[in-house]
This record gives sequence, structure tokens and C-alpha cells, in this order.
Amino acid sequence: MKNLKLSSLNGGPHRKTLVKVGEVTIGQGFIVIAGPCSVESEDQTIETARRVKEAGANILRGGAFKPRTSPYAFQGLGIKGLQILEKAGKETGLPVVTEVLDPRDVSWIAEYVDMLQIGTRNMQNYSLLKEVGKAKKPVLLKRGMYSTLSEWLNCAEYILAEGNPNVVLCERGIRSFDTYSRNTLDLSVVPAVKEVSHLPIIVDPSHGTGRLSLIGPMSLAARAAGADGIMVEVHRNPAEALSDGDQSLPPEMFDSLMKKLKVVDDCMKKIAG
Amino acid sequence: MKNLKLSSLNGGPHRKTLVKVGEVTIGQGFIVIAGPCSVESEDQTIETARRVKEAGANILRGGAFKPRTSPYAFQGLGIKGLQILEKAGKETGLPVVTEVLDPRDVSWIAEYVDMLQIGTRNMQNYSLLKEVGKAKKPVLLKRGMYSTLSEWLNCAEYILAEGNPNVVLCERGIRSFDTYSRNTLDLSVVPAVKEVSHLPIIVDPSHGTGRLSLIGPMSLAARAAGADGIMVEVHRNPAEALSDGDQSLPPEMFDSLMKKLKVVDDCMKKIAG
Amino acid sequence: MKNLKLSSLNGGPHRKTLVKVGEVTIGQGFIVIAGPCSVESEDQTIETARRVKEAGANILRGGAFKPRTSPYAFQGLGIKGLQILEKAGKETGLPVVTEVLDPRDVSWIAEYVDMLQIGTRNMQNYSLLKEVGKAKKPVLLKRGMYSTLSEWLNCAEYILAEGNPNVVLCERGIRSFDTYSRNTLDLSVVPAVKEVSHLPIIVDPSHGTGRLSLIGPMSLAARAAGADGIMVEVHRNPAEALSDGDQSLPPEMFDSLMKKLKVVDDCMKKIAG
Amino acid sequence: MKNLKLSSLNGGPHRKTLVKVGEVTIGQGFIVIAGPCSVESEDQTIETARRVKEAGANILRGGAFKPRTSPYAFQGLGIKGLQILEKAGKETGLPVVTEVLDPRDVSWIAEYVDMLQIGTRNMQNYSLLKEVGKAKKPVLLKRGMYSTLSEWLNCAEYILAEGNPNVVLCERGIRSFDTYSRNTLDLSVVPAVKEVSHLPIIVDPSHGTGRLSLIGPMSLAARAAGADGIMVEVHRNPAEALSDGDQSLPPEMFDSLMKKLKVVDDCMKKIAG
Repeated sequence: MKNLKLSSLNGGPHRKTLVKVGEVTIGQGFIVIAGPCSVESEDQTIETARRVKEAGANILRGGAFKPRTSPYAFQGLGIKGLQILEKAGKETGLPVVTEVLDPRDVSWIAEYVDMLQIGTRNMQNYSLLKEVGKAKKPVLLKRGMYSTLSEWLNCAEYILAEGNPNVVLCERGIRSFDTYSRNTLDLSVVPAVKEVSHLPIIVDPSHGTGRLSLIGPMSLAARAAGADGIMVEVHRNPAEALSDGDQSLPPEMFDSLMKKLKVVDDCMKKIAG
Repeated sequence: MKNLKLSSLNGGPHRKTLVKVGEVTIGQGFIVIAGPCSVESEDQTIETARRVKEAGANILRGGAFKPRTSPYAFQGLGIKGLQILEKAGKETGLPVVTEVLDPRDVSWIAEYVDMLQIGTRNMQNYSLLKEVGKAKKPVLLKRGMYSTLSEWLNCAEYILAEGNPNVVLCERGIRSFDTYSRNTLDLSVVPAVKEVSHLPIIVDPSHGTGRLSLIGPMSLAARAAGADGIMVEVHRNPAEALSDGDQSLPPEMFDSLMKKLKVVDDCMKKIAG
Repeated sequence: MKNLKLSSLNGGPHRKTLVKVGEVTIGQGFIVIAGPCSVESEDQTIETARRVKEAGANILRGGAFKPRTSPYAFQGLGIKGLQILEKAGKETGLPVVTEVLDPRDVSWIAEYVDMLQIGTRNMQNYSLLKEVGKAKKPVLLKRGMYSTLSEWLNCAEYILAEGNPNVVLCERGIRSFDTYSRNTLDLSVVPAVKEVSHLPIIVDPSHGTGRLSLIGPMSLAARAAGADGIMVEVHRNPAEALSDGDQSLPPEMFDSLMKKLKVVDDCMKKIAG
Repeated sequence: MKNLKLSSLNGGPHRKTLVKVGEVTIGQGFIVIAGPCSVESEDQTIETARRVKEAGANILRGGAFKPRTSPYAFQGLGIKGLQILEKAGKETGLPVVTEVLDPRDVSWIAEYVDMLQIGTRNMQNYSLLKEVGKAKKPVLLKRGMYSTLSEWLNCAEYILAEGNPNVVLCERGIRSFDTYSRNTLDLSVVPAVKEVSHLPIIVDPSHGTGRLSLIGPMSLAARAAGADGIMVEVHRNPAEALSDGDQSLPPEMFDSLMKKLKVVDDCMKKIAG
């Protein structure tokens, strides 16, 4: 990366980009994005939104258009999902983030939400990157499951180059050979990003591990490694989830995690002095 | 994959899909797709097309829209590139294939070419897959550099499920830890595809190795492993190529490779005989 | 791993093995192993030992027999290195750990040190594992850079099966495709080990990242993820180190890290209640 | 590798090392090593030896000391296995190769066999490499399942540096993320070795794929890629094999493969002209 002249690198670690999502600022203080993998119904989404809000989450997540490995799997509720998500955001006062899959959908989806997410499969979908680069909403850019740090920052650059400076990176696990966890969460990329870029970075331990028992410890570790936040899947009843049930926290586990995160966050602030 | 009921698997190895690209049939006999990485000028493209035609190539390749890691790298000539490619195809009688990046471009690009290519970065760009599934042109589906066989076949399924049965798979190397070659060409996926699917599969040793000296041996090996063809980058003057110069064969090396391929192809027919 | 009946798994997460190394107990409380990559001279080793002891380290590390990629690289001081290490341990009161490479050397090297280390390259060197299984000293078993959790626990089993119950696992990074860090430190294996095994696990962020700037954050993250300790390379003058200079902390950085670790450790104890 | 001054590289592709194993020469002409994964009984071994000899194999393989992932799996017949292997070699006139695991066993095992094998798990077991470097027998050095070309050649160098010039490299698959095959056979390393080193290289498609249906096609591909030979597991009754039954060819499949290999070999000789 020595020879790159990326605006994602300009100022390197000394300049810090702060990204506003609704009333929440990412890049100063530790934030938590939580919510169901998929928006499945109004009832489920609003109840989950209330639970995560009460527990202290800052932003609500929820998928309306789902990129699924098989064309025959549940593909999301589409526009109905967006309407539910918007309503859940308004009722709880939480800004909302959702994934976009198609460049043709970016501008109208942006009307419903506060932040647009680019998923791991689309990290190098340059048409989509350019389109969110033209949108007026901040972007959550997930790392490709196969991508180097340099490639990832180049994708951020595609967005920045279109005039949208509000990019938040999200580490979500890379593909490796072990099968115990679904992916290998690469936490060392957190201080690496801090070292070379001014962009904020959060961590997704739900996809990063794919295993309920690992999400809590890796969330605390993400904070200790210096991440600006985490994104976790929460479902009021994981056993009934239409997608990612295996890695969705039930609300009571999320409550407990939030309390632990608060303790680690306080101690990390103390260290930062 | 045992539990999948994919139409890409229906009939398994016993049913064979033949894909017609112009007058060329993929899936019976060994075919060669050749041409420059990028269409750079009319002169360069037509000269290269003539050279590969004379050497025995069956289909002409050339990129008009290039997916580049950096937004500041050469992005292709766009529509002008397509016009040049179409002209080169007509002058030589070769059908042409080019990569599509954006679902909004599929229908009009399909007017210029005989086959649409989905690149490795877009293997799981489901909007794009659905759009080429609706097109009336055959599709060359490259394997994601991080993808399992099962995920790849599921992506083929996205295209088939839209009603387009003309899918050709293309192995182009997976990402691994070694840095001697650009990617690790996984030739064993060729007999694996033959074992579980009815779709034809070709091999791209140019991207698969990224190294001039390895392209020839791996092309012969691809034929011996049972591939239905190869796709190679050829440039009249690789040192001046605007992209992938390091892995583009100069015409005389391509001539020599074609002669060797003929010998191996004859011997493999004898074995199959 | 469901079908394995390993004694490394017996009792799973509920039984905890405590491993005594000299007067230090691994498996209750967070411990720090520190010292130079290689023992280079008496002066260097004793000075470094004093510095890490003052900063709060619990065990001294130092290599006398070095497994080097090239046969022409510095191979360690051998027996002289062991004598120096033993002396440094006695002068500071720190127990010492050193790597063994050859089954013929295990019994006599065990006379000089308090703990025997199996390096990543020898994780599946079964002759060596059996020999340390017969030794009366505790064993630090590094994870192979390519190994699954299941394979790693099976290697621990080789040691346990010989009658030595005192095995401590050490995560040191796995091999992946990114080149920003030397290896990919897989912290999620820490809670995974806690979930399935009774053995203690520590983390080596020096080899795990190979990059000075990442060692501190990943040490704190290791503690937050639930590790029983870390092992870090410290050199009084990294620029002059005969091996691993790029990833060795100078003493003042180690001092600072130890202070931060203390804060995180206190907070994690609070969380554990 | 540019900066390495290895004797394994001296002369690069222009100097060719020929390795004599009994009366067989590796490095000129294509050779086949075949036999059971493990020596299980005299009956089984001698019958298999006769079958592979009749089919045209050049060298007999058979494991007497088996490196198994679990300490509770069959570990081989030991010295009895060596005696059987020696007998089978004498009865058929085939030289024999077997794996060594422990530096203490090298000199006496060398009395029984014509070639010593270093397995993938021990590629960087430097004590063992040095010991076979002192032996008077040729060495078959398997690639570590995680190793780069440069690391592999450095391991060959450990052997050469002890005065034993008779090293044959063996590609046996690297570890990747796909689970369809047991490993990912990296055939591109064959022309890569030919490009930078004077050492012969063979391919092991049995371990490289772990799947019966892939062994044949990958054997032919190995020949076409320029390998100096292959090593395959053959068992008179794979269903009863004590190890690697899933990837052992029954004799009739081996017969058929040998006939196809002959055709491809003839054609490749023609190409080489």
C-alpha cells in the first residue's frame, strides 16, 4: 500500500473521519448496531428494536433484500421490509441501516433508511459502490470474505471518489480452512486500519464467527482491539428466524453482552486517557 | 451438496448441456477463447483477433468494461470498446464474449456480443446473475476467487432459474497463501464439475496463474483434466498492454501453445474413444 | 469433533486444568511470558529478563535451538543458550520456557528449563510430541499455522496419552492470503477452546501479527477474549536482534503494554464476577 | 526467491538433477510410484506389489510408520511392516519407498528401503531433514500442506546442505477452504519448480484430492503439466484398508489409469520433440 495515493489514506491515522448516522456519530465512542438478520414481520422487528434500544444499542439493523447462496432460499420482504424497518426506527428513535444489492435500488432505498450497507459478496461490485458513492447517505462497507486490506480500502475509495466521504468499514470474518467457526474473524485488521486510514471500523462477530458461544467474547475483544463499534444479530426467538438463526443472540444474551461491553468500554477509555 | 436439488445438477454427469455461442458449440470438443484483456484500440483488437483466429481460436474475448481494483486504473473503453469488439468479430468470423458489470447494461451490451461474462468479483452479484438469466445470450460464469464448488453451482442456478440454460463455468484460480503465482489454479474442480453437474467447464490459466511461464503447461493440463476449453489472454505487444500485460501471451507463444494443445487434444480423444 | 473421545475434551469446559510452571500457575489469572526470540548473549538475555520481570512478566522465554526457514540463517546458541537462559531465570526468579526441535534432545533440555515449547512447524511431529509426553515438564503446544482446532487438540492428545497432563495451548496465527500482517491471529479459537476443552490457552501476538503496531491491541483483545495469558517477544534493542527484530517490543513499549493489560485484566475479573 | 542463493536453485531450470532409486531414474521419463497407504499384511502387500508391477509401476510405496491425526488411530506395523515391504520389493524387483517420522529411525530404516519419504506434516521438521541429508538414500520430500514454494525449496536445501543431492519434490495438495476435495492439488507448482530449480518433481493425486473420481484426471493433468511422475495409493480391496481407503485405487482402476497415462506420456514426448 506504500505506493497508493488513496483519499481513504490521506492523513493516515492522524485525521479521523466522523460519520453521522441520524443522531449517532461513528468514530468517537463505541457504538452498537443490532437487530434481526432479516425483517420478517412488523411485530418481530418492532419488538426486537425495542429490546435492543432498551439494552443500549445505537442503530437498528435489518435486512429487506437478502443475498442468499441459493436462489430458492428466503430472499427478504423487499419494500414491505423497508417500511417495517422505517417504522421500527421511528418508534424507537434508532437510525436504521439496511443492505442494498442492486445499483437500480440505491436511490429509492436511501429514502427509507439512515445508512446503506454493502455486503461481503458485493465488496467489489463497482457499479454498486459508485451508486452508493452518489447517494447522500453514509455507507457501511463490509470486507470481502477473501479480500486483503489494500483491496478493501480501494473499494472504500470507489465510494469516496464519487463524493461521499461517509464510509464506515466493517470486518466480518475472512474465509479460511477451519470449520469450527463459520469464518475467521480477523481482529488484527482493526489496529491495521487505524494505522493506515482515517476511516472508522466496526466488527461483525455474528457473521465473523457464526457461533453463538463465540459472539460475546469476540465482541469484547473487538472493543479491546480498538474497534469503533460492533454489529450483532439479535432475534427475539432465534429458533424461528428465517435466516441466520444459529448466530442470532436472543435478547437476554444481548442484554448481558451490553453490560459487559460497558465495563470494557469504560476501561478502554481509561487506558486511552 | 447432497441435499441440493439444483437444476444445474439435474441428470448429473450423464446429461450434458451443449452451449452454442454463435456457430461454436461448447461442451463437445475442446474450444479456445482468446484475445486481449482489454479492448484498447481498433487496430490492436482486430490484429489480435486475426492472429488468434489464424492460430485456431474459436471465440474472441475482449474487455470493454473492466473491473479494476483501484478506481483510478484504466476502466475500459466502454461502448466504443464494444463497437470495436463487434467489428473484430465480424471481420474474423469469431463470436465474441465480453464482461458485464452492471445489471442496467446487460440488455444493450447483449446486442453487441455473442456471450456475456460474469467476472470473479461478481460471481455472487445476484442482481447481475438474474439479469443475465433473462438475457437471450449464453453466459460464461467465472468462479469467485473464494468460492466453493457448491456456492459456484448455486450461482449458476440463479441464472438457470431465470430461464437461461446456456451457462458455461470457468475456473480462474482461487486465492491461497502462496505468492509465486497470482492465484492457485484448482484444476481438480474440472473433474469435480463433470462428476456432479451437466454444465460445461473451461479453464482460464491466464488469471489462474498470472505468470507467463505457467500458462502453457496449465493449458495442456486443463485439457488432460477433461476441461471443455480454455480462455487465454493474448496481446500483440504485452509490454504495452493497459491491463494484465504480465499474463498476456504474445501471438507467437499462443501459436506454439495451440499446436501443443492440438496434440494433447488428439490423444485425449483417443483415450475417450 | 462430536465423535472424538479425547481426554483433552473430557469434562469439556467445566473441568479446568491448571498447569504449574515453576511457581507460576497457568489457567487461573492472566499470565505473561516474555523475552527475546533468541538467546543471543548472556548480557542481552539477563538484561531483558530483568526488564520484563520488573514490568510484571511471569515467565521468561528464549530460544536456544531455532527452527529457521533457511538452513543458512542463525540457528541459535544451542547448549550455551540454555545455560544463559537458566542463569537469567535464576537471577530474576522467573521460570523459563524454550523450544525443543528434536526428540533426542528433550530429556536433557528438560534439565535446564521449566517448560518445553513445541513450535508451529512441529505441531504434528508425533515423535517429538510423544517424547515431551514422557518428560516431567509442562508443555507449551503452539498451533500449526495450517491446523484446525480438531487437529490441534489431537496433538495435545498425543502428549496427554503419554501421561503428561500439563499442556498449555498457544494460538500464534494461521496462514491466510493477506500480507499486511505476517499471519492471521485467530482469537476466536480462544473461546472455542474454552467451550470444548479443559486445557488453558494463551496467545502469541508477536508471531500472530509480525508487526509492532498490532501487538499491543491484539494483546488486550486476547485478554478480553478470555485467554489465560500471552507470550510476547521483547528485545532490549530490536534493531540488533538476530531473529524476529521486526516483531520484538523494545522494553519501554512492553512496560506500557503491561500497564494497559493490568487495566483490562482488572475489568475482565470484574465481569467474571 | 530472487535473493536466495540455494543450491536447490543453482543452474535453475537448465541443470537437471537425476535421482536414482534402485535401478529407476527419476528426472528423465515419467515414473509411477504405487502401493498401499499402509503395509497391513504380507499377503496384502505382496499381492498389491505384483498388481502394480504388472500394470507398469516403477517403484513400490508402503507405510510402516504412519503419522495419524489421532494417537488412537492405527499407527502402522513398524519394523514388521518394513520387512514385508522389503520382501515385496525383492519379489517384484521394484525399489521401495517408505516414510520416516523420527530422526532416530533414519539410519536403520534406510537399510530396508531404497528411498526415504518426508511427509507433509514433517516438511519443516529440520532435525529429520538433516538426518535424511546424512543418509545415503534418495529422499522424497512432500510439500507442507501450508507451504510456499520458497519454503519448500528451503527445506530441500536443508537436505542438500548435509551432502545428499538426491532430493525429489512431491506436490500433494495444499489446504484451502473448499471441502469437495480433501486438499487443493496445486499443479501450477510443477512448471514453477521446473522454472526455478533443477530438482525433479512428482505429484500425489491420492492425497491431493482424497477422492477416487478425481485421481485419474489429475494424474493425466500432472503428466501434461510436466511432472516427472506420480505417486498413487493402490489397495487390493480399498473398503478394507486400515487407512486412506477412500482415496485408494482398486487394481483394475489403476490398470486403466496406467494405460491412459501411457497415451498422454507418448504425446507429451512428441511435444517435447
